[in-house]
Amino acid sequence: MAYNLLKGKRGIIFGALDANSIAWKTAERVHEEGGTFVLTNAPIAMRMGQIKALAEKTGSEIIPADATSEEDLANLVAKSTEILGGKLDFVLHSIGMSVNVRKGRSYMDENYDFTAKGWDVSALSFHKVMQSLYKADAMAEWGSIVALTYIAAQRSFPDYNDMADNKAYLESVARSFGYFFGKNKMVRVNTISQSPTATTAGQGIKGFNGFINYADKMSPLGNATADDCADYTVTLFSDLTKKVTMQNLFHDGGFSNTGVSQEVIEEFSK
Amino acid sequence: MAYNLLKGKRGIIFGALDANSIAWKTAERVHEEGGTFVLTNAPIAMRMGQIKALAEKTGSEIIPADATSEEDLANLVAKSTEILGGKLDFVLHSIGMSVNVRKGRSYMDENYDFTAKGWDVSALSFHKVMQSLYKADAMAEWGSIVALTYIAAQRSFPDYNDMADNKAYLESVARSFGYFFGKNKMVRVNTISQSPTATTAGQGIKGFNGFINYADKMSPLGNATADDCADYTVTLFSDLTKKVTMQNLFHDGGFSNTGVSQEVIEEFSK
Amino acid sequence: MAYNLLKGKRGIIFGALDANSIAWKTAERVHEEGGTFVLTNAPIAMRMGQIKALAEKTGSEIIPADATSEEDLANLVAKSTEILGGKLDFVLHSIGMSVNVRKGRSYMDENYDFTAKGWDVSALSFHKVMQSLYKADAMAEWGSIVALTYIAAQRSFPDYNDMADNKAYLESVARSFGYFFGKNKMVRVNTISQSPTATTAGQGIKGFNGFINYADKMSPLGNATADDCADYTVTLFSDLTKKVTMQNLFHDGGFSNTGVSQEVIEEFSK
Amino acid sequence: MAYNLLKGKRGIIFGALDANSIAWKTAERVHEEGGTFVLTNAPIAMRMGQIKALAEKTGSEIIPADATSEEDLANLVAKSTEILGGKLDFVLHSIGMSVNVRKGRSYMDENYDFTAKGWDVSALSFHKVMQSLYKADAMAEWGSIVALTYIAAQRSFPDYNDMADNKAYLESVARSFGYFFGKNKMVRVNTISQSPTATTAGQGIKGFNGFINYADKMSPLGNATADDCADYTVTLFSDLTKKVTMQNLFHDGGFSNTGVSQEVIEEFSK
Repeated sequence: MAYNLLKGKRGIIFGALDANSIAWKTAERVHEEGGTFVLTNAPIAMRMGQIKALAEKTGSEIIPADATSEEDLANLVAKSTEILGGKLDFVLHSIGMSVNVRKGRSYMDENYDFTAKGWDVSALSFHKVMQSLYKADAMAEWGSIVALTYIAAQRSFPDYNDMADNKAYLESVARSFGYFFGKNKMVRVNTISQSPTATTAGQGIKGFNGFINYADKMSPLGNATADDCADYTVTLFSDLTKKVTMQNLFHDGGFSNTGVSQEVIEEFSK
Repeated sequence: MAYNLLKGKRGIIFGALDANSIAWKTAERVHEEGGTFVLTNAPIAMRMGQIKALAEKTGSEIIPADATSEEDLANLVAKSTEILGGKLDFVLHSIGMSVNVRKGRSYMDENYDFTAKGWDVSALSFHKVMQSLYKADAMAEWGSIVALTYIAAQRSFPDYNDMADNKAYLESVARSFGYFFGKNKMVRVNTISQSPTATTAGQGIKGFNGFINYADKMSPLGNATADDCADYTVTLFSDLTKKVTMQNLFHDGGFSNTGVSQEVIEEFSK
Repeated sequence: MAYNLLKGKRGIIFGALDANSIAWKTAERVHEEGGTFVLTNAPIAMRMGQIKALAEKTGSEIIPADATSEEDLANLVAKSTEILGGKLDFVLHSIGMSVNVRKGRSYMDENYDFTAKGWDVSALSFHKVMQSLYKADAMAEWGSIVALTYIAAQRSFPDYNDMADNKAYLESVARSFGYFFGKNKMVRVNTISQSPTATTAGQGIKGFNGFINYADKMSPLGNATADDCADYTVTLFSDLTKKVTMQNLFHDGGFSNTGVSQEVIEEFSK
Repeated sequence: MAYNLLKGKRGIIFGALDANSIAWKTAERVHEEGGTFVLTNAPIAMRMGQIKALAEKTGSEIIPADATSEEDLANLVAKSTEILGGKLDFVLHSIGMSVNVRKGRSYMDENYDFTAKGWDVSALSFHKVMQSLYKADAMAEWGSIVALTYIAAQRSFPDYNDMADNKAYLESVARSFGYFFGKNKMVRVNTISQSPTATTAGQGIKGFNGFINYADKMSPLGNATADDCADYTVTLFSDLTKKVTMQNLFHDGGFSNTGVSQEVIEEFSK
């Protein structure tokens, strides 16, 4: 069901890889709600993905950009405002990758070149995106910038490795830049802390299936899906949430505030 | 602007006193979005207020109820589902009052009968409302219950007195009941932690004007108004936020995550 | 091992019931560290307990007091400063009881007379203790007041029932009163959020054994014991923590910041 | 006054620059409490500092080490355990520096080479220190690792620039590594979030004097000093806090939980 919540709004969506991606689902929902946008992803990720189908379905253009490159981002921002015909109302950052995880390095045996690369891609890229938008004065008043994150930024999930630290940095960037974007441009910046989601990226994490099962049993409403997340993101892009900023918003079926569930207690009472 | 976000949804709105009330503004916005509801307030508050005008404007019925009375609440819930023609999709709890504040008792000189009365009205009433709804099985699946709160539950604001402790209790009730309402009924429960708002109730607090001015200077987007809050509440009642539960959601222009603002620093650098 | 950390310090310890109590262990440790104190408990609890043995061991006097009675507390404070020969340097509040839990009422079926009684005993009593101390000007400069709490104040633990809400209120009282005790008397107020502990009180909670087992597996250093808690409390009473105030301090082997442990994941990967 | 709290304990102290440093004060207090340690700092910082005087006063050796160099750290750890005659009981990480701040780059105009350098020095160095200790199996059971941080990790302080994000990363590293150090080695890891302190480093931040004045007025007990911090750190190194781990501990006179103080309100009521 659509409500025209984003009619006339323009934006950029980072990170749509394939139909399992949260960014993909969000692009579909934003389109249904009347928003127009540019899709972007790293050149290498785009070769693997099926982003062209999404672009056709949503009437969008694709501009490849490495989110760690200031030059690529400046180009992306300039072209996007040109293509879309005005300043931007929304931006979704859905980018994350740990080389240590990919290469099977444990948290106690990090390769620091891998760590630096993962930090640049997963965390600093959010600053780079916002600095590019800020310098180009590309955000419209009351625009909304959202990045996706995970509760490992607050609590230890052993298999999440250095992504936990990257997400903590990302969430801090949201607050730090949110202050200035708010004061100077009337733009809001928030992060959504989403349930573990069976995306192509999520599935790369060791023990992911056991974990997603545990999270579901710990969440009174069950895990939030990628579709749920797309719906929620639409509300944050809409004009109905103008005064929500610098927040980390848990979208997780109640996981974050559940200390233990009856199912889990029973498992340990046997 | 309206989006039909609440078309076909039914609910109860507590606490509309006059046109400054957040509950009043919320009732107007819910009506615009297609929701139908019963208005309720304490019999004594209704004599003072202009709730009838609101009822006429929104096509609502009024059922007086003392939110500390289980009997009144049972009656309210039974009649509301009957009048509205089905289970409830949303409930707004916007009730708070400290007798210690009204009588000018400082926090170090509480009268504990006053404290108990204020706790019953401001905090326990939220449990009573939910227990009444739960026992009557009156909430529809994916229904949404929201209560209003204030950041004094997390940090000390000297003039807020025992309302701080009442709000902390209220927020805990949201988490505690939210667990069971989630697991057993697929209903979500959240609190909105709103900027200080120039309602008739808010203005009773000592030093309120100095404080509202400070809060505005500390909030990158400025204080959230009652109208802003009504908009935000609509999103939480809608189907787009189904997996948000047991959360305390700051709706405050960024106040909660601003350690200090440039204006405030300048004030102290003179 | 003892360090003379509390040499010359005077205080009151509430809630020593039997040798399993955290307050009992704390009294023993405070005595070892050179502190002197008055022991107190509700008259009814004292009949059940073996507090006299503790008093003899630590050279303490016992003054019965119902912590919900302003009169009893005024008497306790006056007599304690007289007996100990000066203002107080430390106070431990270790009091909690839910009538709903005792009577087997679920959280969705609270008896509100029970709820009010439990709130008065478990939460408001902390305010009453501090108000009595404040009005009598009985705390020495740089004195330290500590209350025990539990993480159910932040996250839902289904069997903890209305004690969760009581602990949230108690923690708020620590912040609210801590502000005024700090500004006006240079006294600090904190809560310790302790691991589930196999005290006589703790064992009354349904499913306690399954839960304590789960908590131990979720805590990288294992659950903190009553002895550990006594040690930690000694540091908070000492002169080494003078600027720690209005804090809720987790003393739990890491439970609070562990999202999941490997053992728990394995349980759910089977 | 000394208590022999650290008698027989061995450790490493990073970051003593001059007599204003928190690390310097901590070294003095640890020495008074009976601990022995190696002092270390970056070669370049040591040339500027007066660390030799501190080494003489405390009977310590100095081993220069760049905390971003795995090689230097491996050498430091190996030599320290050799010099001290056994595994380590405590480690203090007090290292932080933002090139963007030094070079006057605003948060909206970061130079990302500067950002990466500051992150490596201020945040990743904590991981590198712990990984070096972990790989060498150099920590004794129930050892304690502490890093210093600042509340800008949670809330925006505009002049704190990218150090806010670095501190958020550092605090996450404490939780992430704390999980594994706890489970596998029975070692605890915590951060102390200290009041703004008039160290040589702190004074480099723009608007620091206005800010320190504001913080003092917002803290019911006033700002915590470097001496206070040294005392507090001693408790965290002692055997009395064995079950405190993965925590960020505010040591700030109550600043973190004060929403507003009466002095600040008055300033804004004029």
